[in-house]
Amino acid sequence: MTGPMSSTPSPLPSDHRASLIDGKAFATALRQTIRQDVQDFRARHGITPGLAVVLVGNDPASEVYVRNKAIQTHHAGMRSFMHMLPESTSEQELLNLVERLNKDPEIHGILVQLPLPGGLDAGRVTNAILPEKDVDGLGVVNAGRLAVNQPGIVPCTPLGCLMLLRDQLGDMTGLHAVVIGCSNLVGKPLALLLLAEGCTVSIAHIHTRDTAALAREADILVVATGSRELVRGDWIKPGATVIDVGITRMQTPEGKSRLVGDVAFDEAVKVAGRITPVPGGVGPMTIACLLNNTLAAARMQVEGAGA
Amino acid sequence: MTGPMSSTPSPLPSDHRASLIDGKAFATALRQTIRQDVQDFRARHGITPGLAVVLVGNDPASEVYVRNKAIQTHHAGMRSFMHMLPESTSEQELLNLVERLNKDPEIHGILVQLPLPGGLDAGRVTNAILPEKDVDGLGVVNAGRLAVNQPGIVPCTPLGCLMLLRDQLGDMTGLHAVVIGCSNLVGKPLALLLLAEGCTVSIAHIHTRDTAALAREADILVVATGSRELVRGDWIKPGATVIDVGITRMQTPEGKSRLVGDVAFDEAVKVAGRITPVPGGVGPMTIACLLNNTLAAARMQVEGAGA
Repeated sequence: MTGPMSSTPSPLPSDHRASLIDGKAFATALRQTIRQDVQDFRARHGITPGLAVVLVGNDPASEVYVRNKAIQTHHAGMRSFMHMLPESTSEQELLNLVERLNKDPEIHGILVQLPLPGGLDAGRVTNAILPEKDVDGLGVVNAGRLAVNQPGIVPCTPLGCLMLLRDQLGDMTGLHAVVIGCSNLVGKPLALLLLAEGCTVSIAHIHTRDTAALAREADILVVATGSRELVRGDWIKPGATVIDVGITRMQTPEGKSRLVGDVAFDEAVKVAGRITPVPGGVGPMTIACLLNNTLAAARMQVEGAGA
Repeated sequence: MTGPMSSTPSPLPSDHRASLIDGKAFATALRQTIRQDVQDFRARHGITPGLAVVLVGNDPASEVYVRNKAIQTHHAGMRSFMHMLPESTSEQELLNLVERLNKDPEIHGILVQLPLPGGLDAGRVTNAILPEKDVDGLGVVNAGRLAVNQPGIVPCTPLGCLMLLRDQLGDMTGLHAVVIGCSNLVGKPLALLLLAEGCTVSIAHIHTRDTAALAREADILVVATGSRELVRGDWIKPGATVIDVGITRMQTPEGKSRLVGDVAFDEAVKVAGRITPVPGGVGPMTIACLLNNTLAAARMQVEGAGA
């Protein structure tokens, strides 16, 4: 697929540096907007949007995520309810809690932190959440609405990527987007979102025979594999927009640790037109989009908009 | 994306002709198998699978489709119930009928023929069908199950294409599939099915800038645009497998009419490795897959399999 950008590729100057897509600043501004919108919503309806976050077990990373979600929800002026259950919780107990939260009019969004401890069926629990309260957008009803392009709740990380791309590129009609990674959490929903934007979309994954060649066709390259620094500089079409969803902690030779993405940043920055850094790119968007989805869910439930 | 097939393209002899994918014969054999399976199902459970087909209004093409579906259902040994409603039917009346059919234990599959007359919301009606009776697979729950790769009911035409491809190619892991057309009915569900088969998948559509160039990368090329003879011989990689979903009636210079697909067959047959003819390719698979889905739905409801 060759668009205008590639048919006459302007040779990049040797000191070319991609412009950085500042997800941290974008997320901060988004949270600020949401905070204002929450105030307006409360003034109009006398209702404060509420998010219930459910954590089962003691996974340390999950505890950090859940705490950050709760704090940012609180900072946005919404109500935040934490349910921390022991590792020994049965699936039926968890389903009973979800059912209670489904019925609770003070709760507009429900999030069950994944992964769940062994023995608990994440699919069954996720699908027990009412679609209009499923602020992670991971249930089949919201996945289906996305697939057939009906209004619904979109998973947070792909939504964050889409917001950054819209902000950077505006109209994406006809651009070739290549998504590397086809998870239910990121790759597939993002591919469907980009299709709805009018992009030509290609999806590569572990079985793709020549991922580099396909990546080089991309006007928009999204990488969400969890394979650190998979994408090298020569995988990128000069001037392309690169969204790096991956984040891995690695040890430096000096014994320090740093976060790296799925893209070899130092190489990519010399070729790409725009690129998200890691950290500070996609990462901060995820929780901001959770707040966005919680407010949208409250609006759907209270105002019936978009439902 | 270049796989082994393209990296050393064997020049085709000048008299090369693609082998024809005989969808008519495949569908006949499938219907025969279903007929036997229906007998076995009845012997085991004392229950005959039942399909309700609902037609609103007097669209002549829809009347033909609906009649063919009913006859073939009957021939497969299943029960077929026709509901033909006047053009003036209100949405509420239609929803009441769907609700009654949802509750009827003799009905395992419900199909509302589209398009509906103006004023009736096809999305609302389709989504009112219980997901386990939605044998067209067009409701959001089945669309979502397909998107996240959970067992569900897959729309008939994409399922028919997949069956032909599996029969022709076996394991498709790593092949590059290019789908031209991104409708909810065919293009998008087929792209998701091919992704689940392990294909690298690209989706092109009306906004794609150089569809021919993308098509030339395809090991598997599926065309579902409704734009007759859009795909020319030089869009096809030598040896590729071509699935033509389109079907349009056109006038010949002699004043006769004939059916043509979305692929210029006479050109394509000289380049492709395998190709579906029009008619006799994908077309006959659609109703056979409806029967397949109706039996599968009855099994899910009676045996709980795959639910």
